[in-house]
Amino acid sequence: MNNREFKKGNTVFFKNAPRIIAGSAVCGSKEKEGIIGSYADVTLDDDMYGETTYEKAECKMLKTAIALAIEKGKLEQSDIDLLISGDLLNQIISASFSARDYNFPFLGVYSACSTMSESIMLAAMLVNAGYVKNAVAATGSHFASAERQYRYPLELGCTRPPQSQWTVTGAGGCLVAAADKGVKITSATMGRVCDLGVTDVNNMGAAMAPAAADTIIGHFKDTGTCPEDYDMILTGDLGALGSRILKDLTWEKGFDISENHVDCGEIIYKVIESEFQGGSGAGCSAVVFNSYVLSGLQSGLYKRVLFAATGALLSTVSSGQGESIPCISHAVELEF
Amino acid sequence: MNNREFKKGNTVFFKNAPRIIAGSAVCGSKEKEGIIGSYADVTLDDDMYGETTYEKAECKMLKTAIALAIEKGKLEQSDIDLLISGDLLNQIISASFSARDYNFPFLGVYSACSTMSESIMLAAMLVNAGYVKNAVAATGSHFASAERQYRYPLELGCTRPPQSQWTVTGAGGCLVAAADKGVKITSATMGRVCDLGVTDVNNMGAAMAPAAADTIIGHFKDTGTCPEDYDMILTGDLGALGSRILKDLTWEKGFDISENHVDCGEIIYKVIESEFQGGSGAGCSAVVFNSYVLSGLQSGLYKRVLFAATGALLSTVSSGQGESIPCISHAVELEF
Repeated sequence: MNNREFKKGNTVFFKNAPRIIAGSAVCGSKEKEGIIGSYADVTLDDDMYGETTYEKAECKMLKTAIALAIEKGKLEQSDIDLLISGDLLNQIISASFSARDYNFPFLGVYSACSTMSESIMLAAMLVNAGYVKNAVAATGSHFASAERQYRYPLELGCTRPPQSQWTVTGAGGCLVAAADKGVKITSATMGRVCDLGVTDVNNMGAAMAPAAADTIIGHFKDTGTCPEDYDMILTGDLGALGSRILKDLTWEKGFDISENHVDCGEIIYKVIESEFQGGSGAGCSAVVFNSYVLSGLQSGLYKRVLFAATGALLSTVSSGQGESIPCISHAVELEF
Repeated sequence: MNNREFKKGNTVFFKNAPRIIAGSAVCGSKEKEGIIGSYADVTLDDDMYGETTYEKAECKMLKTAIALAIEKGKLEQSDIDLLISGDLLNQIISASFSARDYNFPFLGVYSACSTMSESIMLAAMLVNAGYVKNAVAATGSHFASAERQYRYPLELGCTRPPQSQWTVTGAGGCLVAAADKGVKITSATMGRVCDLGVTDVNNMGAAMAPAAADTIIGHFKDTGTCPEDYDMILTGDLGALGSRILKDLTWEKGFDISENHVDCGEIIYKVIESEFQGGSGAGCSAVVFNSYVLSGLQSGLYKRVLFAATGALLSTVSSGQGESIPCISHAVELEF
């Protein structure tokens, strides 16, 4: 940090090093079978979570994640200055309806599956500047609500193409604070929209990989770092195919991330074959980052992590009107 | 500003006074007949704007507004550090597809019809902190794309209830910069989600008025000001009925804003009767603020304006599942 500038390229450096003082994760019945099962705070047996609709279940998961992040940070609701959240549902209703239960301000964001890194980045910016002391960044998704909004009703039993991914049922949040303890957020790289013309809505990994490459390479250049400087370069939900494309794209530009790249979507499920390319959705990186990865950062297992979740900024209407898929990736750099 | 603290309550004070150095507005054929017709930069004869779909027309308006804001600020695209934008369409496609055309970073936000004030607030926060020098805040809406997404296909010819409003076809943007000239942004009040249980999706004014009252009263208390201190207290799209409710709610709390309250939705159309309660939509405050109001601030006609747009954070799914309408209002204080 010492001789870095305040901002270089699209990367902002945080002089006051805002901290993640707690993280929380709620995951569904399928997700708990995998790697995050023993790290998540709440694991569901029934993905309806006692609610009458998928959307309400998704909202309840997000509410639980927000409440848990505050509780695990040993703070009260009255200590929280701001909630930054968004989700995949139309008009981000999970986030808005979660915010309704709280008395603190709410900043709604939308960045598809990169919402987790966008909201952490924004929280870090506002905490670092001194505008707020404690901010919660959170997001989530639900397989069933995403399927019926973006694809087909589950009852239709449509077959899935081999390049498809499985939307994660889960929510995660973290508490970003001006504190002395916790995982440092040392910089953030703001993403640009990249669109290389992919139109296949079942192949999000291929669509999103260029955005991840753009932000990750930009981050390396702005910070003067190389892949070896990080214990982990974490993407959100590129999946197996998208991760391979990302490695190729970065390798072409002279950065070999193959040794330390990890994709949340690729590692979340126990048997990846049955979910084809792996997990996806805003909840994918939210649960993996806020449980498995954060605990590694908190324990010192990882000294430095670059977290760059990716989002596909399409809608059913844009795809229906023949548009390709614009994508984005925002990155945050974390240190033990 | 002198003896104010950095943050009080939910209000952040900007010591470096980020400035709005330019604003732009594009409006539709119906909107140009009204008060903003002579202030808007581009007025359309055909609301399709040469495109094949309503959504593409909406996106083109937003793109034009962004380009115009940069041009009117006498900057190049390469000078811009960030675009903050969102809109009413599912997955904010107008904003994302607009951002695709540019090489600078994009922060997607969603705050329904309060997107204009949320994005100006966020731009001011990031500029004031020194993270970015020049940021564009922009949003828009289109009557036809909103009708078919939120209500009914236009071809159905449904009648409109008397408490309904008319979604504005238009887009507006402004350039928020660390500069010596321009309209000062002196503070911003972050909104909380308010939901008093209104479930009538045709009566947004009634649903949103409590959120506006909460933020405006919070702003008065945090800043130690009273309604008389402002030349204009501007709301976004409460409409005639919602504005009356807002005046009642603030009056009950000891703040009489009846003398200087102006609602963008109430003033935008020439003959308000035919649009019932007036205009609405993210584009409503975007075009009125960035043309009519901003020119008044630039000329010194208004010395001090409080701009608090409101957003109804519902979706067709949430309403269909019996939920009431959570609302929010973010406010920015502007000085000549």
